[in-house]
Amino acid sequence: MAILPEDRDRLRDDITAAGGEISEVESADAILWTDPREPGGLGSALARSPARWVQLPFAGIEPFFEAGVIDPDHIWTCAKGIYGPSTAEHALTLMLAAARRLSQHMNATAWSGEGTERRLKDAVVLVIGTGGIGRSLTAMLEPLEARVIGVNRSGRPLPGAERTATVKELTKLIPDADYIVVAAALTSETHGLLGAEYLSLMKPDAWVVNVGRGGLIQTDALIAALRSRSIGGAALDVTDPEPLPDGHPLWELDNAIITPHVANTWEMALPELRALVRRNVARYKQGEQLEGLVDPALGY
Amino acid sequence: MAILPEDRDRLRDDITAAGGEISEVESADAILWTDPREPGGLGSALARSPARWVQLPFAGIEPFFEAGVIDPDHIWTCAKGIYGPSTAEHALTLMLAAARRLSQHMNATAWSGEGTERRLKDAVVLVIGTGGIGRSLTAMLEPLEARVIGVNRSGRPLPGAERTATVKELTKLIPDADYIVVAAALTSETHGLLGAEYLSLMKPDAWVVNVGRGGLIQTDALIAALRSRSIGGAALDVTDPEPLPDGHPLWELDNAIITPHVANTWEMALPELRALVRRNVARYKQGEQLEGLVDPALGY
Repeated sequence: MAILPEDRDRLRDDITAAGGEISEVESADAILWTDPREPGGLGSALARSPARWVQLPFAGIEPFFEAGVIDPDHIWTCAKGIYGPSTAEHALTLMLAAARRLSQHMNATAWSGEGTERRLKDAVVLVIGTGGIGRSLTAMLEPLEARVIGVNRSGRPLPGAERTATVKELTKLIPDADYIVVAAALTSETHGLLGAEYLSLMKPDAWVVNVGRGGLIQTDALIAALRSRSIGGAALDVTDPEPLPDGHPLWELDNAIITPHVANTWEMALPELRALVRRNVARYKQGEQLEGLVDPALGY
Repeated sequence: MAILPEDRDRLRDDITAAGGEISEVESADAILWTDPREPGGLGSALARSPARWVQLPFAGIEPFFEAGVIDPDHIWTCAKGIYGPSTAEHALTLMLAAARRLSQHMNATAWSGEGTERRLKDAVVLVIGTGGIGRSLTAMLEPLEARVIGVNRSGRPLPGAERTATVKELTKLIPDADYIVVAAALTSETHGLLGAEYLSLMKPDAWVVNVGRGGLIQTDALIAALRSRSIGGAALDVTDPEPLPDGHPLWELDNAIITPHVANTWEMALPELRALVRRNVARYKQGEQLEGLVDPALGY
Protein backbone atom coordinates (compact mmCIF):
# COMPACT_ATOMS: atom_id res chain seq x y z
CA MET A 1 0.00 0.00 0.00
CA ALA A 2 1.28 3.45 -0.90
CA ILE A 3 0.67 6.46 1.35
CA LEU A 4 0.15 9.67 -0.64
CA PRO A 5 0.47 12.60 -0.99
CA GLU A 6 1.99 12.92 2.46
CA ASP A 7 3.54 10.00 4.25
CA ARG A 8 2.60 9.67 7.88
CA ASP A 9 4.57 7.46 10.21
CA ARG A 10 1.70 6.42 12.38
CA LEU A 11 -0.38 5.27 9.42
CA ARG A 12 2.57 3.22 8.12
CA ASP A 13 2.58 1.42 11.45
CA ASP A 14 -1.10 0.62 11.10
CA ILE A 15 -0.70 -0.82 7.61
CA THR A 16 2.15 -3.09 8.64
CA ALA A 17 0.45 -4.02 11.92
CA ALA A 18 -2.54 -5.24 9.90
CA GLY A 19 -0.30 -7.40 7.72
CA GLY A 20 0.13 -4.99 4.82
CA GLU A 21 3.33 -3.72 3.27
CA ILE A 22 4.37 -0.20 2.40
CA SER A 23 5.19 0.15 -1.28
CA GLU A 24 5.78 2.71 -3.99
CA VAL A 25 2.71 3.83 -5.90
CA GLU A 26 4.02 2.16 -9.10
CA SER A 27 3.77 -1.28 -7.50
CA ALA A 28 0.96 -0.76 -4.98
CA ASP A 29 -2.25 -2.79 -4.74
CA ALA A 30 -3.81 0.04 -2.80
CA ILE A 31 -3.42 3.74 -2.09
CA LEU A 32 -4.07 5.48 1.21
CA TRP A 33 -4.72 9.12 0.31
CA THR A 34 -3.99 11.28 3.37
CA ASP A 35 -5.12 14.74 2.31
CA PRO A 36 -8.76 15.14 3.28
CA ARG A 37 -9.70 18.05 1.05
CA GLU A 38 -7.24 18.13 -1.81
CA PRO A 39 -7.85 15.69 -4.65
CA GLY A 40 -5.05 17.14 -6.80
CA GLY A 41 -2.46 14.59 -7.76
CA LEU A 42 -4.58 11.52 -7.01
CA GLY A 43 -5.56 11.19 -10.68
CA SER A 44 -1.97 11.15 -11.87
CA ALA A 45 -0.98 8.77 -9.08
CA LEU A 46 -3.71 6.38 -10.19
CA ALA A 47 -2.56 6.65 -13.82
CA ARG A 48 0.86 5.29 -12.93
CA SER A 49 -0.32 2.69 -10.40
CA PRO A 50 -1.78 -0.80 -10.65
CA ALA A 51 -3.74 -0.12 -7.45
CA ARG A 52 -7.27 -1.53 -7.28
CA TRP A 53 -8.35 0.06 -3.99
CA VAL A 54 -8.17 3.67 -2.78
CA GLN A 55 -8.81 4.59 0.87
CA LEU A 56 -9.77 8.25 1.39
CA PRO A 57 -9.25 9.75 4.85
CA PHE A 58 -12.46 11.68 5.50
CA ALA A 59 -16.19 11.24 5.11
CA GLY A 60 -17.02 14.26 2.96
CA ILE A 61 -15.49 13.34 -0.38
CA GLU A 62 -17.28 15.67 -2.77
CA PRO A 63 -13.98 17.37 -3.77
CA PHE A 64 -12.85 14.02 -5.19
CA PHE A 65 -16.08 13.62 -7.13
CA GLU A 66 -15.87 17.19 -8.42
CA ALA A 67 -12.29 16.61 -9.55
CA GLY A 68 -13.54 13.57 -11.47
CA VAL A 69 -11.06 11.15 -9.93
CA ILE A 70 -13.62 8.73 -8.48
CA ASP A 71 -14.10 6.24 -11.29
CA PRO A 72 -15.87 2.87 -11.43
CA ASP A 73 -12.57 1.07 -12.18
CA HIS A 74 -11.34 1.19 -8.59
CA ILE A 75 -12.72 0.19 -5.24
CA TRP A 76 -13.17 3.41 -3.24
CA THR A 77 -13.53 3.59 0.51
CA CYS A 78 -13.82 6.65 2.71
CA ALA A 79 -14.15 7.28 6.42
CA LYS A 80 -17.92 7.61 6.48
CA GLY A 81 -19.48 6.64 9.77
CA ILE A 82 -16.39 6.65 11.94
CA TYR A 83 -16.34 10.40 12.54
CA GLY A 84 -20.02 10.45 13.42
CA PRO A 85 -19.54 10.67 17.19
CA SER A 86 -17.13 13.63 17.19
CA THR A 87 -19.15 15.56 14.61
CA ALA A 88 -22.41 14.79 16.41
CA GLU A 89 -20.86 16.01 19.66
CA HIS A 90 -20.11 19.31 17.96
CA ALA A 91 -23.68 19.54 16.65
CA LEU A 92 -24.91 18.93 20.20
CA THR A 93 -22.56 21.66 21.45
CA LEU A 94 -23.99 24.15 18.96
CA MET A 95 -27.59 23.19 19.77
CA LEU A 96 -26.98 23.64 23.49
CA ALA A 97 -25.12 26.92 22.92
CA ALA A 98 -28.19 28.17 21.05
CA ALA A 99 -30.68 26.85 23.61
CA ARG A 100 -28.77 28.28 26.56
CA ARG A 101 -28.03 31.63 24.84
CA LEU A 102 -24.28 31.23 25.27
CA SER A 103 -23.36 33.92 22.76
CA GLN A 104 -25.23 36.52 24.80
CA HIS A 105 -23.75 35.27 28.07
CA MET A 106 -20.20 34.98 26.76
CA ASN A 107 -20.19 38.60 25.68
CA ALA A 108 -21.81 39.90 28.86
CA THR A 109 -19.96 41.99 31.41
CA ALA A 110 -22.93 42.30 33.74
CA TRP A 111 -25.32 39.88 35.42
CA SER A 112 -28.47 39.66 33.29
CA GLY A 113 -30.56 37.13 35.17
CA GLU A 114 -32.98 34.80 33.45
CA GLY A 115 -33.93 35.32 29.83
CA THR A 116 -35.16 33.05 27.08
CA GLU A 117 -32.90 30.11 27.93
CA ARG A 118 -34.43 26.81 26.89
CA ARG A 119 -33.91 23.13 27.47
CA LEU A 120 -33.71 20.52 24.75
CA LYS A 121 -36.35 18.45 26.53
CA ASP A 122 -39.33 18.05 24.17
CA ALA A 123 -37.58 20.13 21.49
CA VAL A 124 -38.35 18.90 17.97
CA VAL A 125 -35.06 18.23 16.18
CA LEU A 126 -35.06 17.56 12.44
CA VAL A 127 -31.90 15.65 11.61
CA ILE A 128 -31.34 15.91 7.86
CA GLY A 129 -28.99 13.09 6.92
CA THR A 130 -29.15 9.86 8.85
CA GLY A 131 -25.61 8.54 8.44
CA GLY A 132 -23.00 8.29 11.18
CA ILE A 133 -23.51 11.84 12.45
CA GLY A 134 -27.30 11.56 12.58
CA ARG A 135 -27.19 8.21 14.34
CA SER A 136 -24.71 9.43 16.98
CA LEU A 137 -26.57 12.68 17.53
CA THR A 138 -29.83 10.81 18.06
CA ALA A 139 -28.19 8.69 20.75
CA MET A 140 -26.75 11.80 22.42
CA LEU A 141 -30.14 13.54 22.42
CA GLU A 142 -31.92 10.59 23.99
CA PRO A 143 -30.98 11.34 27.64
CA LEU A 144 -31.84 15.00 27.00
CA GLU A 145 -35.37 13.91 26.03
CA ALA A 146 -35.41 15.78 22.74
CA ARG A 147 -37.72 14.53 19.99
CA VAL A 148 -35.70 13.51 16.94
CA ILE A 149 -37.19 13.25 13.45
CA GLY A 150 -34.81 11.84 10.88
CA VAL A 151 -34.90 12.99 7.26
CA ASN A 152 -33.25 11.14 4.39
CA ARG A 153 -33.86 10.20 0.75
CA SER A 154 -35.64 6.94 1.36
CA GLY A 155 -37.34 7.33 4.73
CA ARG A 156 -35.34 4.35 6.01
CA PRO A 157 -35.66 4.52 9.82
CA LEU A 158 -33.07 6.36 11.86
CA PRO A 159 -32.63 4.24 15.02
CA GLY A 160 -33.89 6.06 18.10
CA ALA A 161 -35.81 8.69 16.13
CA GLU A 162 -39.50 9.31 16.81
CA ARG A 163 -39.96 8.88 13.07
CA THR A 164 -38.01 9.18 9.85
CA ALA A 165 -39.34 11.10 6.87
CA THR A 166 -38.20 11.72 3.32
CA VAL A 167 -36.86 15.03 2.04
CA LYS A 168 -40.21 15.53 0.29
CA GLU A 169 -41.91 15.90 3.67
CA LEU A 170 -39.68 18.80 4.79
CA THR A 171 -42.35 21.36 3.91
CA LYS A 172 -44.68 19.76 6.43
CA LEU A 173 -42.03 19.11 9.07
CA ILE A 174 -40.09 22.39 9.20
CA PRO A 175 -42.90 24.51 10.73
CA ASP A 176 -42.83 22.33 13.87
CA ALA A 177 -39.05 22.09 14.25
CA ASP A 178 -37.09 23.81 17.00
CA TYR A 179 -33.75 22.78 15.51
CA ILE A 180 -32.81 21.75 11.99
CA VAL A 181 -29.51 19.89 12.03
CA VAL A 182 -27.93 19.54 8.60
CA ALA A 183 -25.70 16.49 8.51
CA ALA A 184 -26.11 15.14 4.98
CA ALA A 185 -23.51 14.42 2.34
CA LEU A 186 -23.07 17.13 -0.27
CA THR A 187 -24.20 15.77 -3.62
CA SER A 188 -25.86 17.21 -6.69
CA GLU A 189 -29.19 16.31 -5.03
CA THR A 190 -28.47 18.03 -1.72
CA HIS A 191 -26.58 21.09 -2.93
CA GLY A 192 -28.39 24.23 -1.76
CA LEU A 193 -31.05 22.11 -0.05
CA LEU A 194 -31.91 24.68 2.59
CA GLY A 195 -32.87 27.88 0.81
CA ALA A 196 -35.35 30.75 1.14
CA GLU A 197 -38.42 28.56 0.78
CA TYR A 198 -37.61 26.16 3.61
CA LEU A 199 -36.14 28.92 5.79
CA SER A 200 -39.38 30.88 5.48
CA LEU A 201 -41.26 27.95 7.03
CA MET A 202 -39.19 27.95 10.21
CA LYS A 203 -40.46 29.09 13.60
CA PRO A 204 -39.12 32.51 14.59
CA ASP A 205 -37.16 30.97 17.46
CA ALA A 206 -35.90 27.88 15.62
CA TRP A 207 -32.20 27.38 14.87
CA VAL A 208 -30.35 25.88 11.95
CA VAL A 209 -27.22 23.89 12.82
CA ASN A 210 -24.87 22.86 10.00
CA VAL A 211 -22.15 20.30 10.62
CA GLY A 212 -22.42 18.75 7.15
CA ARG A 213 -21.13 20.92 4.34
CA GLY A 214 -21.51 24.65 3.74
CA GLY A 215 -23.03 24.07 0.32
CA LEU A 216 -26.10 22.37 1.80
CA ILE A 217 -27.42 25.81 2.79
CA GLN A 218 -27.90 28.81 0.50
CA THR A 219 -25.82 31.38 2.34
CA ASP A 220 -27.55 34.48 0.95
CA ALA A 221 -30.99 33.19 1.92
CA LEU A 222 -29.71 32.31 5.38
CA ILE A 223 -28.24 35.77 5.90
CA ALA A 224 -31.54 37.34 4.86
CA ALA A 225 -33.42 35.17 7.39
CA LEU A 226 -30.95 36.03 10.15
CA ARG A 227 -31.08 39.75 9.38
CA SER A 228 -34.85 39.87 9.38
CA ARG A 229 -34.92 37.65 12.50
CA SER A 230 -37.46 35.40 10.84
CA ILE A 231 -35.52 32.52 12.45
CA GLY A 232 -33.86 32.25 15.85
CA GLY A 233 -30.35 31.77 14.59
CA ALA A 234 -27.79 29.67 12.79
CA ALA A 235 -24.84 27.77 14.22
CA LEU A 236 -22.44 26.77 11.47
CA ASP A 237 -19.30 24.68 11.60
CA VAL A 238 -19.18 24.63 7.81
CA THR A 239 -19.86 27.56 5.50
CA ASP A 240 -20.14 28.49 1.87
CA PRO A 241 -17.72 29.96 1.01
CA GLU A 242 -15.25 28.20 3.28
CA PRO A 243 -13.11 29.44 4.86
CA LEU A 244 -15.45 32.32 5.53
CA PRO A 245 -13.57 35.43 4.35
CA ASP A 246 -12.78 38.37 6.62
CA GLY A 247 -15.58 40.92 6.57
CA HIS A 248 -18.24 38.38 5.56
CA PRO A 249 -21.67 39.39 6.95
CA LEU A 250 -21.99 36.15 8.96
CA TRP A 251 -19.16 37.28 11.25
CA GLU A 252 -21.16 40.26 12.46
CA LEU A 253 -24.63 38.80 12.97
CA ASP A 254 -25.40 38.33 16.67
CA ASN A 255 -27.71 35.40 15.92
CA ALA A 256 -25.03 33.45 14.04
CA ILE A 257 -22.47 31.21 15.75
CA ILE A 258 -19.51 30.27 13.56
CA THR A 259 -16.92 27.60 14.37
CA PRO A 260 -14.12 27.08 11.84
CA HIS A 261 -14.79 23.49 10.69
CA VAL A 262 -13.61 21.93 13.93
CA ALA A 263 -16.35 19.35 14.54
CA ASN A 264 -13.83 16.66 13.73
CA THR A 265 -10.29 18.01 13.83
CA TRP A 266 -7.33 16.05 12.51
CA GLU A 267 -6.34 15.39 16.15
CA MET A 268 -9.78 13.90 16.87
CA ALA A 269 -9.89 12.03 13.56
CA LEU A 270 -6.49 10.37 13.54
CA PRO A 271 -7.15 7.65 16.16
CA GLU A 272 -10.37 6.69 14.36
CA LEU A 273 -8.72 6.75 10.93
CA ARG A 274 -5.83 4.62 12.16
CA ALA A 275 -8.25 2.01 13.47
CA LEU A 276 -10.18 2.06 10.17
CA VAL A 277 -6.98 1.59 8.15
CA ARG A 278 -6.03 -1.39 10.31
CA ARG A 279 -9.46 -2.94 9.83
CA ASN A 280 -9.59 -2.34 6.09
CA VAL A 281 -6.06 -3.56 5.38
CA ALA A 282 -6.86 -6.77 7.24
CA ARG A 283 -10.14 -7.13 5.33
CA TYR A 284 -8.46 -6.50 2.00
CA LYS A 285 -5.90 -9.21 2.74
CA GLN A 286 -8.69 -11.64 3.63
CA GLY A 287 -10.70 -10.71 0.55
CA GLU A 288 -13.53 -9.44 2.76
CA GLN A 289 -15.81 -6.52 1.97
CA LEU A 290 -14.23 -3.23 2.93
CA GLU A 291 -15.73 -0.74 5.37
CA GLY A 292 -16.85 2.69 4.12
CA LEU A 293 -17.41 1.70 0.50
CA VAL A 294 -18.16 4.66 -1.76
CA ASP A 295 -20.90 4.33 -4.35
CA PRO A 296 -19.65 6.25 -7.40
CA ALA A 297 -23.22 6.53 -8.70
CA LEU A 298 -24.68 8.07 -5.52
CA GLY A 299 -21.74 10.38 -4.95
CA TYR A 300 -20.97 9.30 -1.36
CA MET B 1 -52.75 24.51 51.78
CA ALA B 2 -51.67 28.14 51.74
CA ILE B 3 -49.56 29.57 48.91
CA LEU B 4 -47.08 32.19 50.15
CA PRO B 5 -45.56 34.73 49.76
CA GLU B 6 -46.85 35.05 46.22
CA ASP B 7 -49.98 33.33 45.05
CA ARG B 8 -49.68 31.65 41.69
CA ASP B 9 -52.75 30.58 39.80
CA ARG B 10 -51.24 27.56 38.17
CA LEU B 11 -50.03 26.14 41.47
CA ARG B 12 -53.51 26.62 42.96
CA ASP B 13 -54.84 24.46 40.15
CA ASP B 14 -52.34 21.74 40.99
CA ILE B 15 -53.25 21.69 44.66
CA THR B 16 -56.95 21.39 43.96
CA ALA B 17 -56.41 18.90 41.13
CA ALA B 18 -54.59 16.66 43.63
CA GLY B 19 -57.50 16.83 46.05
CA GLY B 20 -56.19 19.64 48.26
CA GLU B 21 -57.89 22.88 49.21
CA ILE B 22 -56.55 26.40 49.13
CA SER B 23 -56.73 28.04 52.56
CA GLU B 24 -55.48 31.01 54.52
CA VAL B 25 -52.22 30.47 56.36
CA GLU B 26 -54.02 30.71 59.73
CA SER B 27 -55.98 27.54 59.00
CA ALA B 28 -53.61 25.68 56.67
CA ASP B 29 -52.25 22.16 57.20
CA ALA B 30 -49.46 22.96 54.81
CA ILE B 31 -47.64 25.87 53.22
CA LEU B 32 -46.33 26.04 49.68
CA TRP B 33 -43.57 28.66 49.75
CA THR B 34 -43.10 30.04 46.25
CA ASP B 35 -40.07 32.29 46.54
CA PRO B 36 -36.99 30.21 45.79
CA ARG B 37 -34.34 32.41 47.36
CA GLU B 38 -36.05 34.60 49.91
CA PRO B 39 -36.80 33.04 53.28
CA GLY B 40 -38.03 36.34 54.75
CA GLY B 41 -41.54 36.12 56.08
CA LEU B 42 -41.70 32.33 56.26
CA GLY B 43 -40.87 32.34 59.98
CA SER B 44 -43.68 34.75 60.82
CA ALA B 45 -46.08 32.83 58.59
CA LEU B 46 -45.24 29.64 60.45
CA ALA B 47 -45.73 31.37 63.80
CA ARG B 48 -49.35 32.15 62.98
CA SER B 49 -50.13 28.85 61.25
CA PRO B 50 -51.01 25.36 62.43
CA ALA B 51 -49.27 23.96 59.30
CA ARG B 52 -47.31 20.73 59.79
CA TRP B 53 -45.74 20.55 56.32
CA VAL B 54 -43.81 23.15 54.29
CA GLN B 55 -43.03 22.62 50.62
CA LEU B 56 -40.13 24.72 49.33
CA PRO B 57 -39.92 25.38 45.59
CA PHE B 58 -36.25 24.82 44.77
CA ALA B 59 -33.50 22.34 45.55
CA GLY B 60 -30.87 24.68 47.01
CA ILE B 61 -32.39 25.66 50.33
CA GLU B 62 -29.40 26.97 52.25
CA PRO B 63 -30.94 30.47 52.56
CA PHE B 64 -33.74 28.89 54.63
CA PHE B 65 -31.25 27.13 56.87
CA GLU B 66 -29.19 30.30 57.27
CA ALA B 67 -32.33 32.23 58.19
CA GLY B 68 -33.01 29.62 60.85
CA VAL B 69 -36.54 28.87 59.74
CA ILE B 70 -36.04 25.16 59.11
CA ASP B 71 -36.93 23.60 62.43
CA PRO B 72 -37.51 20.00 63.50
CA ASP B 73 -41.17 20.75 64.37
CA HIS B 74 -42.34 20.73 60.76
CA ILE B 75 -42.06 18.36 57.85
CA TRP B 76 -39.94 20.09 55.22
CA THR B 77 -39.82 19.14 51.57
CA CYS B 78 -37.93 20.78 48.76
CA ALA B 79 -37.57 20.20 45.04
CA LYS B 80 -34.36 18.20 45.21
CA GLY B 81 -33.91 15.78 42.37
CA ILE B 82 -36.57 17.10 40.03
CA TYR B 83 -34.43 19.86 38.55
CA GLY B 84 -31.51 17.50 37.99
CA PRO B 85 -32.03 17.09 34.24
CA SER B 86 -32.21 20.80 33.36
CA THR B 87 -29.24 21.69 35.57
CA ALA B 88 -27.23 18.75 34.26
CA GLU B 89 -28.00 19.85 30.71
CA HIS B 90 -26.51 23.23 31.53
CA ALA B 91 -23.41 21.60 33.02
CA LEU B 92 -23.06 19.57 29.82
CA THR B 93 -23.43 22.79 27.80
CA LEU B 94 -20.61 24.43 29.75
CA MET B 95 -18.35 21.37 29.46
CA LEU B 96 -18.88 21.22 25.70
CA ALA B 97 -18.37 24.98 25.36
CA ALA B 98 -15.02 24.56 27.11
CA ALA B 99 -14.01 21.47 25.14
CA ARG B 100 -14.91 23.01 21.79
CA ARG B 101 -13.40 26.44 22.61
CA LEU B 102 -16.67 28.25 22.01
CA SER B 103 -15.61 31.45 23.76
CA GLN B 104 -12.74 31.87 21.32
CA HIS B 105 -14.91 31.04 18.32
CA MET B 106 -17.84 33.20 19.38
CA ASN B 107 -15.62 36.27 19.58
CA ALA B 108 -13.78 35.57 16.33
CA THR B 109 -14.23 37.69 13.23
CA ALA B 110 -11.84 35.63 11.13
CA TRP B 111 -11.49 31.95 10.25
CA SER B 112 -8.94 30.41 12.60
CA GLY B 113 -8.91 26.78 11.51
CA GLU B 114 -8.21 23.94 13.93
CA GLY B 115 -6.86 24.63 17.40
CA THR B 116 -7.02 22.77 20.67
CA GLU B 117 -10.64 21.66 20.35
CA ARG B 118 -11.28 18.45 22.25
CA ARG B 119 -13.93 15.78 22.48
CA LEU B 120 -15.42 14.52 25.72
CA LYS B 121 -14.66 10.93 24.68
CA ASP B 122 -12.34 9.42 27.29
CA ALA B 123 -12.30 12.67 29.28
CA VAL B 124 -12.15 12.08 33.03
CA VAL B 125 -15.04 13.94 34.67
CA LEU B 126 -15.15 14.29 38.45
CA VAL B 127 -18.75 14.88 39.44
CA ILE B 128 -18.76 16.30 42.98
CA GLY B 129 -22.23 15.74 44.35
CA THR B 130 -24.18 12.70 43.25
CA GLY B 131 -27.76 13.86 43.69
CA GLY B 132 -30.19 14.58 40.88
CA ILE B 133 -27.78 16.73 38.86
CA GLY B 134 -24.92 14.24 39.09
CA ARG B 135 -27.13 11.32 38.15
CA SER B 136 -28.60 13.10 35.13
CA LEU B 137 -25.23 14.39 33.98
CA THR B 138 -23.77 10.89 34.15
CA ALA B 139 -26.55 9.61 31.90
CA MET B 140 -25.98 12.47 29.46
CA LEU B 141 -22.24 11.80 29.31
CA GLU B 142 -22.69 8.10 28.62
CA PRO B 143 -23.28 8.38 24.83
CA LEU B 144 -20.38 10.85 24.68
CA GLU B 145 -18.12 8.13 26.14
CA ALA B 146 -16.72 10.32 28.90
CA ARG B 147 -15.40 8.62 32.04
CA VAL B 148 -17.38 9.74 35.07
CA ILE B 149 -16.07 9.46 38.62
CA GLY B 150 -18.61 10.39 41.28
CA VAL B 151 -17.59 12.07 44.51
CA ASN B 152 -19.78 12.29 47.60
CA ARG B 153 -19.60 12.05 51.39
CA SER B 154 -20.14 8.35 51.69
CA GLY B 155 -18.81 6.84 48.47
CA ARG B 156 -22.28 5.45 47.78
CA PRO B 157 -22.22 4.51 44.06
CA LEU B 158 -23.34 6.98 41.44
CA PRO B 159 -25.19 4.87 38.85
CA GLY B 160 -23.34 4.81 35.53
CA ALA B 161 -20.08 6.14 36.97
CA GLU B 162 -16.82 4.28 36.47
CA ARG B 163 -16.43 4.54 40.24
CA THR B 164 -17.56 6.68 43.14
CA ALA B 165 -15.13 8.08 45.68
CA THR B 166 -15.41 10.05 48.88
CA VAL B 167 -14.42 13.68 49.26
CA LYS B 168 -11.31 12.49 51.11
CA GLU B 169 -9.98 10.98 47.87
CA LEU B 170 -10.12 14.27 45.96
CA THR B 171 -6.40 14.88 46.39
CA LYS B 172 -5.68 11.67 44.51
CA LEU B 173 -8.39 12.13 41.89
CA ILE B 174 -8.00 15.78 40.87
CA PRO B 175 -4.61 15.39 39.10
CA ASP B 176 -6.22 13.03 36.55
CA ALA B 177 -9.40 14.99 35.97
CA ASP B 178 -10.15 16.85 32.75
CA TYR B 179 -13.35 18.38 34.16
CA ILE B 180 -14.44 18.95 37.74
CA VAL B 181 -18.19 19.48 37.89
CA VAL B 182 -19.39 20.94 41.16
CA ALA B 183 -22.99 19.94 41.78
CA ALA B 184 -23.19 19.48 45.55
CA ALA B 185 -25.51 21.07 48.06
CA LEU B 186 -24.05 24.03 49.95
CA THR B 187 -23.69 23.09 53.60
CA SER B 188 -21.27 23.92 56.39
CA GLU B 189 -19.27 20.87 55.23
CA THR B 190 -19.07 21.85 51.57
CA HIS B 191 -18.68 25.61 51.90
CA GLY B 192 -15.45 26.69 50.16
CA LEU B 193 -14.71 23.08 49.21
CA LEU B 194 -12.69 23.94 46.12
CA GLY B 195 -9.87 26.25 47.20
CA ALA B 196 -6.22 26.91 46.38
CA GLU B 197 -5.03 23.48 47.49
CA TYR B 198 -7.33 21.45 45.25
CA LEU B 199 -7.03 23.96 42.36
CA SER B 200 -3.24 23.61 42.45
CA LEU B 201 -3.60 19.87 41.77
CA MET B 202 -5.52 20.36 38.52
CA LYS B 203 -4.07 19.70 35.08
CA PRO B 204 -3.20 22.91 33.23
CA ASP B 205 -5.90 22.23 30.65
CA ALA B 206 -8.61 21.01 33.04
CA TRP B 207 -11.80 22.99 33.59
CA VAL B 208 -13.96 23.62 36.64
CA VAL B 209 -17.72 23.74 36.01
CA ASN B 210 -19.98 25.00 38.79
CA VAL B 211 -23.73 24.50 38.57
CA GLY B 212 -24.19 23.95 42.33
CA ARG B 213 -23.70 27.03 44.44
CA GLY B 214 -21.13 29.81 44.18
CA GLY B 215 -20.00 29.26 47.77
CA LEU B 216 -18.67 25.79 46.96
CA ILE B 217 -15.64 27.43 45.31
CA GLN B 218 -13.30 29.98 46.88
CA THR B 219 -13.58 32.77 44.34
CA ASP B 220 -10.24 34.46 45.10
CA ALA B 221 -8.33 31.20 44.73
CA LEU B 222 -10.14 30.49 41.47
CA ILE B 223 -9.30 33.91 40.06
CA ALA B 224 -5.64 33.39 40.95
CA ALA B 225 -5.62 30.02 39.16
CA LEU B 226 -7.32 31.50 36.10
CA ARG B 227 -4.94 34.48 35.97
CA SER B 228 -1.83 32.32 36.24
CA ARG B 229 -3.35 29.85 33.74
CA SER B 230 -2.52 26.99 36.06
CA ILE B 231 -5.92 25.55 35.03
CA GLY B 232 -7.66 25.53 31.66
CA GLY B 233 -10.65 27.53 32.72
CA ALA B 234 -13.83 27.86 34.74
CA ALA B 235 -17.43 27.82 33.57
CA LEU B 236 -19.73 29.11 36.27
CA ASP B 237 -23.49 29.33 36.39
CA VAL B 238 -23.32 30.26 40.07
CA THR B 239 -20.87 32.64 41.68
CA ASP B 240 -19.81 34.03 45.03
CA PRO B 241 -20.80 36.81 45.31
CA GLU B 242 -23.99 36.36 43.34
CA PRO B 243 -25.10 38.22 41.35
CA LEU B 244 -21.56 38.92 40.21
CA PRO B 245 -21.15 42.70 40.49
CA ASP B 246 -20.21 44.92 37.55
CA GLY B 247 -16.45 45.24 37.22
CA HIS B 248 -15.75 41.93 38.99
CA PRO B 249 -12.51 40.36 37.67
CA LEU B 250 -14.32 37.19 36.52
CA TRP B 251 -16.10 39.21 33.81
CA GLU B 252 -12.82 40.05 32.09
CA LEU B 253 -10.95 36.73 32.21
CA ASP B 254 -10.90 35.06 28.80
CA ASN B 255 -10.73 31.60 30.38
CA ALA B 256 -13.89 32.12 32.44
CA ILE B 257 -17.39 31.53 31.10
CA ILE B 258 -20.16 33.06 33.22
CA THR B 259 -23.86 32.35 32.85
CA PRO B 260 -26.22 34.19 35.21
CA HIS B 261 -27.74 31.29 37.20
CA VAL B 262 -29.85 30.04 34.33
CA ALA B 263 -29.24 26.29 34.55
CA ASN B 264 -32.79 25.91 35.77
CA THR B 265 -34.83 29.02 35.08
CA TRP B 266 -38.27 29.56 36.57
CA GLU B 267 -39.74 28.81 33.11
CA MET B 268 -37.93 25.45 33.05
CA ALA B 269 -38.71 24.70 36.68
CA LEU B 270 -42.41 25.46 36.82
CA PRO B 271 -43.68 22.37 34.94
CA GLU B 272 -41.55 20.14 37.19
CA LEU B 273 -42.57 21.97 40.36
CA ARG B 274 -46.25 21.75 39.42
CA ALA B 275 -45.96 18.00 38.95
CA LEU B 276 -44.14 17.67 42.30
CA VAL B 277 -46.83 19.68 44.11
CA ARG B 278 -49.52 17.45 42.62
CA ARG B 279 -47.67 14.32 43.73
CA ASN B 280 -46.91 15.60 47.22
CA VAL B 281 -50.42 16.92 47.92
CA ALA B 282 -51.83 13.54 46.91
CA ARG B 283 -49.29 11.75 49.11
CA TYR B 284 -50.02 14.02 52.06
CA LYS B 285 -53.72 13.28 51.75
CA GLN B 286 -52.99 9.54 51.68
CA GLY B 287 -50.61 9.78 54.61
CA GLU B 288 -47.75 8.56 52.42
CA GLN B 289 -44.13 9.64 52.69
CA LEU B 290 -43.51 12.90 50.87
CA GLU B 291 -41.01 13.34 48.06
CA GLY B 292 -37.97 15.60 48.55
CA LEU B 293 -37.84 15.38 52.33
CA VAL B 294 -35.32 17.74 53.91
CA ASP B 295 -33.13 16.45 56.72
CA PRO B 296 -32.77 19.40 59.13
CA ALA B 297 -29.65 17.76 60.59
CA LEU B 298 -27.80 17.35 57.26
CA GLY B 299 -28.83 20.73 55.93
CA TYR B 300 -30.36 19.54 52.65
